[in-house]
Amino acid sequence: MKWESELHCRKRWFLTLLSALTILFSALDTRAGAASAAANDPLPSWNNTGPKQAIISFVEKVTKEGASDFIPVGERIATFDNDGTLWAEQPIYFQLRFALDRVKALAPQHPEWKDKSPFNKLLSTSREQMVAVNEHELMEIIIVAHSGITTDEFEQIVKDWLAKAKHPKTGRRYTEMVYQPMLELLTYMRANGFKTFIVSGGGVEFMRVFAEEVYGVPREQVLGSQGKLKFEVRDGKPVLIKLPEVQFVDDKEGKPVGIQTFIGRRPVAAFGNSDGDLQMLQWTTAGTGPRFGLIVHHTDAEREWAYDRQSQVGTLDKALDAAPVNHWVVVSMKDDWKYIFPFESK
Amino acid sequence: MKWESELHCRKRWFLTLLSALTILFSALDTRAGAASAAANDPLPSWNNTGPKQAIISFVEKVTKEGASDFIPVGERIATFDNDGTLWAEQPIYFQLRFALDRVKALAPQHPEWKDKSPFNKLLSTSREQMVAVNEHELMEIIIVAHSGITTDEFEQIVKDWLAKAKHPKTGRRYTEMVYQPMLELLTYMRANGFKTFIVSGGGVEFMRVFAEEVYGVPREQVLGSQGKLKFEVRDGKPVLIKLPEVQFVDDKEGKPVGIQTFIGRRPVAAFGNSDGDLQMLQWTTAGTGPRFGLIVHHTDAEREWAYDRQSQVGTLDKALDAAPVNHWVVVSMKDDWKYIFPFESK
Repeated sequence: MKWESELHCRKRWFLTLLSALTILFSALDTRAGAASAAANDPLPSWNNTGPKQAIISFVEKVTKEGASDFIPVGERIATFDNDGTLWAEQPIYFQLRFALDRVKALAPQHPEWKDKSPFNKLLSTSREQMVAVNEHELMEIIIVAHSGITTDEFEQIVKDWLAKAKHPKTGRRYTEMVYQPMLELLTYMRANGFKTFIVSGGGVEFMRVFAEEVYGVPREQVLGSQGKLKFEVRDGKPVLIKLPEVQFVDDKEGKPVGIQTFIGRRPVAAFGNSDGDLQMLQWTTAGTGPRFGLIVHHTDAEREWAYDRQSQVGTLDKALDAAPVNHWVVVSMKDDWKYIFPFESK
Repeated sequence: MKWESELHCRKRWFLTLLSALTILFSALDTRAGAASAAANDPLPSWNNTGPKQAIISFVEKVTKEGASDFIPVGERIATFDNDGTLWAEQPIYFQLRFALDRVKALAPQHPEWKDKSPFNKLLSTSREQMVAVNEHELMEIIIVAHSGITTDEFEQIVKDWLAKAKHPKTGRRYTEMVYQPMLELLTYMRANGFKTFIVSGGGVEFMRVFAEEVYGVPREQVLGSQGKLKFEVRDGKPVLIKLPEVQFVDDKEGKPVGIQTFIGRRPVAAFGNSDGDLQMLQWTTAGTGPRFGLIVHHTDAEREWAYDRQSQVGTLDKALDAAPVNHWVVVSMKDDWKYIFPFESK
């Protein structure tokens, strides 16, 4: 009996162990299943066309340990333009709209602006004149309009504006006018060990206010154009004052320069939408080993805007010609994106 | 019997489960024990004096979730000066030695340097004249001596020099002349969720060559003085050329400016050793919430060097006076450090 009891116990014990293991494995399986389902479609707002396949194929090949195309985590640097690549830029750069509102608010204190370019362009009621401000002039406006205030004060002004201002066409907040497929792409790349940076012609102190919340990109990974700053001790308190001088323009040739200066490492992937991104794409994809370049082509007049070679804002001409030669992926927003804005996909 | 057998089985099953849990918990306990032993002395090269206690007390209070002094991970920015804070700077800045070797190598191609300051100082055989080069002049030398070459070529020159050059006093490679207690501090802070940055008056492209390997600080977390760069396409290949012009001097007032421009966030902790770090310490510790400032005071003539107010290299005068007023911790290398260099502690 003892032996029988012992056997019975062993059998019971074995069955208990087995069922415990079954529960454990099925729990693991469920988690693995969920993870693999998500991994199966990390880019749900992208149609299953060439660009999506190219992105996934690149990410999979460079993250496969032991493979010849493997890139170590520390070297997985991906740079993204902002205006027209991560959020919309029509009918005018959002930061230009911010500057316009700011210049209008400050105009009574600056009667000299009425006859002084580029301020008169912003103060003019004519839409054509208003739009005819290039990115260099935009920087001048931003910098002059905000000189003399501290970096902390500037941050608060941007926050207040973003909380109130609405896009003239959609009526949405500007931070809602971001591209859902690009948000997914940022998340997907980060999940695969990429460090994502914004490299934009826009003002760095403007973008840093919302980049972390909206894109998940921390302040120290945002590069942009800069005004000069001055360190001062005011009433015993150290402050940084914005000066009316340009320190650095992070556009065109400035993008690879900014990347080298701030990041110190050539990216392995770069994403842009205009000729302002041409040199960043060239610099990135001319590196040795696997590289990835992508251009967002605005082709959807219905859901967003359709523009390229002739557009004043976000001109895409030289970079569009350079794309096939350099094997850059060109995304047609109309054909390759299932949804454009986050508010659509709900 | 069936009932008895059932009870026996349950008891057996219970004991089996208990012993399995015991093994599991003791395994977990061993791991936790090992971790807590390491956590008990994260700074073994520091004597158990005030500075070590202050560091640990700060880190523990700001990482305690729910506590009033808690700092979220993304805001745990710590900035470290390099020369005299992370590695030695006597008898001359190591980068100045690099520039000297470089200028000597290039001198035959530049006969005009013989009569031109600051190059003549470097080419002079007199030690006094050679040392009388300030950090601005050092930048000028570095920048001019390396202008016209690409950033890739410069990196190779630095690598080659670091692999061969030896310190005149210790005969060690310059990358061995780093402070063991500071290496432990960097590791300790990172283990507690801090992002560690180098913020130095030295040339950014020089430091980035070794910062990751030696300090565990990736290139994109190294800030320093910069020469202007130019993007060019040479023989169909994009390159970045070093120009003979200063873009930014990351010293004194330049340090908070550099921090705001590159990181975009005020650090919560800053570490320096000279008046060149005064403004970075002021800017850091003037922020709201818990802040930490520390000065490495070179007090050990035997194991390292002893210098402060009157020193030409690494002058520590105003910042030493400002320390008690601002509650900055002052480390006496002689009294507070058990070991100074990694080669000692072996």
